[in-house]
Amino acid sequence: MRDAEIIAADWGTSHLRVWGLKGDTVVHEAASDQGMGQLSRDGFEPTLLALIADWLPEGQVTPVIICGMAGSRQGWVEAPYRAVPCLPLGGLLAQAPCRDLRLAVHIVQGLQQAKPADVIRGEETQVAGFLAQNPGWDGVICLPGTHSKWVHVSAGEVVSFQTFLTGEMFALLSEQSVLRHSVAGWTEDGFAEGVAQGMERPERLMARLFGLRAEALLDGLAADMARARLSGLLIGAELAAAKPYWLGQRVAVIGAAPLAQHYAQALGTLSAPVSTHDAIAMTLAGLAAARTLLPPEEPPCVN
Amino acid sequence: MRDAEIIAADWGTSHLRVWGLKGDTVVHEAASDQGMGQLSRDGFEPTLLALIADWLPEGQVTPVIICGMAGSRQGWVEAPYRAVPCLPLGGLLAQAPCRDLRLAVHIVQGLQQAKPADVIRGEETQVAGFLAQNPGWDGVICLPGTHSKWVHVSAGEVVSFQTFLTGEMFALLSEQSVLRHSVAGWTEDGFAEGVAQGMERPERLMARLFGLRAEALLDGLAADMARARLSGLLIGAELAAAKPYWLGQRVAVIGAAPLAQHYAQALGTLSAPVSTHDAIAMTLAGLAAARTLLPPEEPPCVN
Repeated sequence: MRDAEIIAADWGTSHLRVWGLKGDTVVHEAASDQGMGQLSRDGFEPTLLALIADWLPEGQVTPVIICGMAGSRQGWVEAPYRAVPCLPLGGLLAQAPCRDLRLAVHIVQGLQQAKPADVIRGEETQVAGFLAQNPGWDGVICLPGTHSKWVHVSAGEVVSFQTFLTGEMFALLSEQSVLRHSVAGWTEDGFAEGVAQGMERPERLMARLFGLRAEALLDGLAADMARARLSGLLIGAELAAAKPYWLGQRVAVIGAAPLAQHYAQALGTLSAPVSTHDAIAMTLAGLAAARTLLPPEEPPCVN
Repeated sequence: MRDAEIIAADWGTSHLRVWGLKGDTVVHEAASDQGMGQLSRDGFEPTLLALIADWLPEGQVTPVIICGMAGSRQGWVEAPYRAVPCLPLGGLLAQAPCRDLRLAVHIVQGLQQAKPADVIRGEETQVAGFLAQNPGWDGVICLPGTHSKWVHVSAGEVVSFQTFLTGEMFALLSEQSVLRHSVAGWTEDGFAEGVAQGMERPERLMARLFGLRAEALLDGLAADMARARLSGLLIGAELAAAKPYWLGQRVAVIGAAPLAQHYAQALGTLSAPVSTHDAIAMTLAGLAAARTLLPPEEPPCVN
């Protein structure tokens, strides 16, 4: 059991995924819903240890590399942002305080852009993982999720990026707005229709949203059509706004199924050359690549 | 005390306002937060009686006229929609079942539009009240709120209308999204800036929204600026989409302060001739006008 050489962790607002690596091989894997959002500063170390204590060789220090919101101001320790243009991974890893002498915890820095003001935390590691697997790749990486990101990559660097609130908006509207009574399920037709409407007249978004409710009341619009169209309207509006990113570019969509497929499908209708890639696999590849940023000698970490 | 000739009520999703009228004079007034949203069908009558029982003359039937969501499918009784173009008030009032022999309860019908599918329930009464006070007025009436409405009025009729989810979106984003950490207070500058940005590039809305969070993190954007800009971005995007309504028209904004003033201010920057009118006063005027729709003889209402 106790054979991990390094621990890699993806610690977001609402999730934690950890891997034990030996060379490039995953020898352990675990996950929990103890995201940054529900932890106070001194809750991170015990939460991590609860998952990985059995993987740690005794009598030596095992490095831990973490990406994601655990490095935010409200996280374990703040890992500052690096300014684009820059490599997706670089700079100093932030060292997180810990008591257990078997751990040396490092957190990957996020990225910041001055104008328009924007930040990334976590997705830079997915971008790095993708580039590690696709060296020399230039183009645009789309990372759908709660806050979807569009990242322009050239010569191995992140040139610029743009965040959209699309995923969070979908969750709020479908679960907490007046529309929640009218949406459930999914149909491909509804999604395609929504994307087309959202792309064509993105400025009409807030009227189209109420239209879903009105059509449900007046025309009996089916709940699966309505939910898929809601998603399509939001993603279509995002694609319209992100056009300077994807137009004339090849696009790699990194995300979880089925959301990544929905984006790829929508981009496909725009004749953008699209490939899709699993978000967890890219995160793991990026964390593995981040090993080169570890300090050469690893002193034991004491609080 | 017991001198109301008629009871008028505005019964929305989250509020109830009632007036006792004698001729055109308001002799009683009361309000509660017992909106339609928290009542089951048999909860309406006792809720109403709790406010008005003391106003009712004994030994006779007092008519009650209600507008708003109490007439929806989930309300006291469903008052069907009338199709535009039509007068804002008309058709048969829906009769609500009640046990108290002193009451005869009638609910105003809402309006529906076939294409684009849209519905109004409650605002038709405000429009009627405005037209009762401004006979012969042609133009566009803007009714900001949870679901803001734009209503094209000509020759006393509602020609067409359009609903935007703006107010609900603002509430969700400012109270429940990631932006809730960054928004509090108000500044006129922030609002004006948001309106300008929202009008200019409405399709960029979801990116601008995340930008508020990023600017707070990177540039220390003040919370009052951020909240006012959030409101401005949403209202600006609404104004961009509603341009076919307000362009070249005079606009009457009917709403509560300060929201109505914010809309009027934003419309003012677009050189639209704007007037503002109090929503409660217009509702009351509309309910008073609805008296002409009461059946000529009022039988006692028995369940």
